[in-house]
Amino acid sequence: MASDTHGNAYPILPDGEEGFTVEAARMKFGPGMLAELGGDALSLGMTRVALFTDPRVAATAPFAMALDGLKRAGVDPVVFDRCRVEPTSASFLDAADFARDGGFDGYVSIGGGSVIDTAKAANLYATYPADFLAYVNKPLGEGIPVPGPVKPHIACPTTCGTGSETTGVAIFDHVEKQVKTGISSRYLRPSLAVVDPRTIDSLPPGAIAATGFDVLTHAIESHTARPFRSRPRPDQPTARPPYQGANPWSDIGSLQAIRLGGQWLERAVNDPDCAEARDALMFAATLAGLAFGNAGVHIPHAMSYSVAGMNHSFTATGYETVDPMVPHGISVVLNAPAAFRFTGPAAPEAHLRAAEALGADVRGASPEDGGELLATRLISMMRATGLPNGLSALGYGEADIPGLVRGAAAQQRLLTIAPRPVSEDDLRGLYADAMRYW
Amino acid sequence: MASDTHGNAYPILPDGEEGFTVEAARMKFGPGMLAELGGDALSLGMTRVALFTDPRVAATAPFAMALDGLKRAGVDPVVFDRCRVEPTSASFLDAADFARDGGFDGYVSIGGGSVIDTAKAANLYATYPADFLAYVNKPLGEGIPVPGPVKPHIACPTTCGTGSETTGVAIFDHVEKQVKTGISSRYLRPSLAVVDPRTIDSLPPGAIAATGFDVLTHAIESHTARPFRSRPRPDQPTARPPYQGANPWSDIGSLQAIRLGGQWLERAVNDPDCAEARDALMFAATLAGLAFGNAGVHIPHAMSYSVAGMNHSFTATGYETVDPMVPHGISVVLNAPAAFRFTGPAAPEAHLRAAEALGADVRGASPEDGGELLATRLISMMRATGLPNGLSALGYGEADIPGLVRGAAAQQRLLTIAPRPVSEDDLRGLYADAMRYW
Repeated sequence: MASDTHGNAYPILPDGEEGFTVEAARMKFGPGMLAELGGDALSLGMTRVALFTDPRVAATAPFAMALDGLKRAGVDPVVFDRCRVEPTSASFLDAADFARDGGFDGYVSIGGGSVIDTAKAANLYATYPADFLAYVNKPLGEGIPVPGPVKPHIACPTTCGTGSETTGVAIFDHVEKQVKTGISSRYLRPSLAVVDPRTIDSLPPGAIAATGFDVLTHAIESHTARPFRSRPRPDQPTARPPYQGANPWSDIGSLQAIRLGGQWLERAVNDPDCAEARDALMFAATLAGLAFGNAGVHIPHAMSYSVAGMNHSFTATGYETVDPMVPHGISVVLNAPAAFRFTGPAAPEAHLRAAEALGADVRGASPEDGGELLATRLISMMRATGLPNGLSALGYGEADIPGLVRGAAAQQRLLTIAPRPVSEDDLRGLYADAMRYW
Repeated sequence: MASDTHGNAYPILPDGEEGFTVEAARMKFGPGMLAELGGDALSLGMTRVALFTDPRVAATAPFAMALDGLKRAGVDPVVFDRCRVEPTSASFLDAADFARDGGFDGYVSIGGGSVIDTAKAANLYATYPADFLAYVNKPLGEGIPVPGPVKPHIACPTTCGTGSETTGVAIFDHVEKQVKTGISSRYLRPSLAVVDPRTIDSLPPGAIAATGFDVLTHAIESHTARPFRSRPRPDQPTARPPYQGANPWSDIGSLQAIRLGGQWLERAVNDPDCAEARDALMFAATLAGLAFGNAGVHIPHAMSYSVAGMNHSFTATGYETVDPMVPHGISVVLNAPAAFRFTGPAAPEAHLRAAEALGADVRGASPEDGGELLATRLISMMRATGLPNGLSALGYGEADIPGLVRGAAAQQRLLTIAPRPVSEDDLRGLYADAMRYW
């Protein structure tokens, strides 16, 4: 397989994996595309639509345009704007009740990943009623396969960073168990993703920065993930894991997303009038979403859960109107320079390629410099966009490290995607390195 | 829209197209993947399968492996090996009779585009019986939309160059009208494309060259196609043409296909023991298929129909055992250097990017050199792989040009994808330039 060369901390197995899969995703991309939603809905046979959103998005111009477009096309939309930012089993069930009572033949979701995931769950439980835990992933749920196709669903992301519009996964907080879990099925993949960059025009610069760095880390983590050929070949094609590791398909999307992010992220944050920068960032988000949905993400995301979960007093720039919390993208990217310094030696060429794509000056560099060059370039972009200077700027210190490590160590599903093994000792060192960058 | 810059022979319209669509394609790629076909078929609910192929492919090891895999998984495959290399309405109907009588719940096609297209048509007419012309594209057919989903179909290409495994199009010769036409529907898109590069191991070097250059021209034509934003924005999303012109999505796939082709095509032809080169070429074919199915192809393909159609006495290297004919890839690539010299000035940066990706030395070059650099690099690759030296090597001369032009001028559907208008005068000049390259 003519894949790009990756490092060999996990060696390519002689009888290892030789194949990779690409899931289908039907998409439309372009500024103003939400105005066409009526025609899209009709073409999917929708006449009465459950339109999921949240109160912030419901007040924006693109949402009004979408609603108007649906009505003008003769589609009957009924708005549900009670989607929670972090959905729970209760909020999923609330949405499912709405869906079941409404007699809908189609679903449209306009919002972040939470809104899109809520629509997926509502569609599922309205189409195939069951106890809530029936379809939820094991071990928390029963993991019963979704029986068949659900109603058509058009998903319209309004942030860059979710990949939910092209996946068959719906994530929620299981409040009693205090854990994030989800429902996964090919049937939950939206029939169409409509990505309209005008939906992020109303985001403040701080939110563009946070979500934009989430996009960038999706892309860099996908590109530096353990190579797919280091896994044993499965007995059955259905035993192939959904996160396959870096492969020639994911590498194409991840590299282009890194290039676009390197070129446009700073401008998208610092020049709110530059539509071209936001368009590029939103397209990068789409590409990164496809790449990480295929290859997987690793250490920066694994480390992010406890960074967000243990801190409830931080207010990020651009998030002054919501309750204090660490925005997801910030909880991820603050770990990234430390993580890529650590993973660089395991996959030097992938890190060097990523550094170059991000805009680092790689003249005269050898692959061994890849991790450091990548970290340095990321730090420079973080400074240029007003991000916090490491975890210490969120209020974390030495004493918090054991707790942070416990949270990260629980994310084995992600840590196994890293290009080298990650011990708890390693995680301690990574959190220490992530405390301050400049 | 942060698209790459293309030329402006067709200007970007102020109220022009702003969106582009990406159709879904579910794929699996890797050497040896045909051995997993049993598991794939079961996962799609197949128990009794119509297995379409042709006599040449039926005698190869990968076909035997696929057949064995289906049987071991408990799937009951019935082989239909009467697929014609250029399918006709009659051969489609023959296949449909077989499908209808067999009581199948799934379809597998292993072969070139003709085999895959035959399976699509058989699946359609067995599922929704109708007069043959009912679903055929207007104006030749009635253009009645395919009523709904057909049975699951796994398409396994055994040549590089078809893109049929990821499209919803089935092409055939309408013998009475002497014209190629087809059936198009999203529902005809295969449920899964399994791309196993080991299927091209049995092809002779001449056939690798012919099909490999078809891949390369697919990619270069997609990359140099008229930009999508030079079209007016459609009133309805369903009015968007299937060939959208070059856009940021197609550009990613086309450029990577050009890179892989530039790096590996010569080796794939000249070193039959190099599996890595054939793997790369087959992956390039997949990417180029996605790109040209999205952006479209233009002048070299438009010129190819009469080159192939008017010549029935040529025997290409590697095609000694079949009746004389011009292999499709050769009929295309012999026009390509002339065409790209002509289109270069209309989209200079796209041509320069393509030239660089193909391996041309572009140091110190300006975009204006793009077309010539691209042509020169292509000619060098054609010489290195034993291709005929232009149309004169097929036996064409000055006197044939009017006939060749008539054939090309009829392909307006493709000519409108070119980055500049193409008159019959232009076509005369292009055929004259394509007569001899070295």
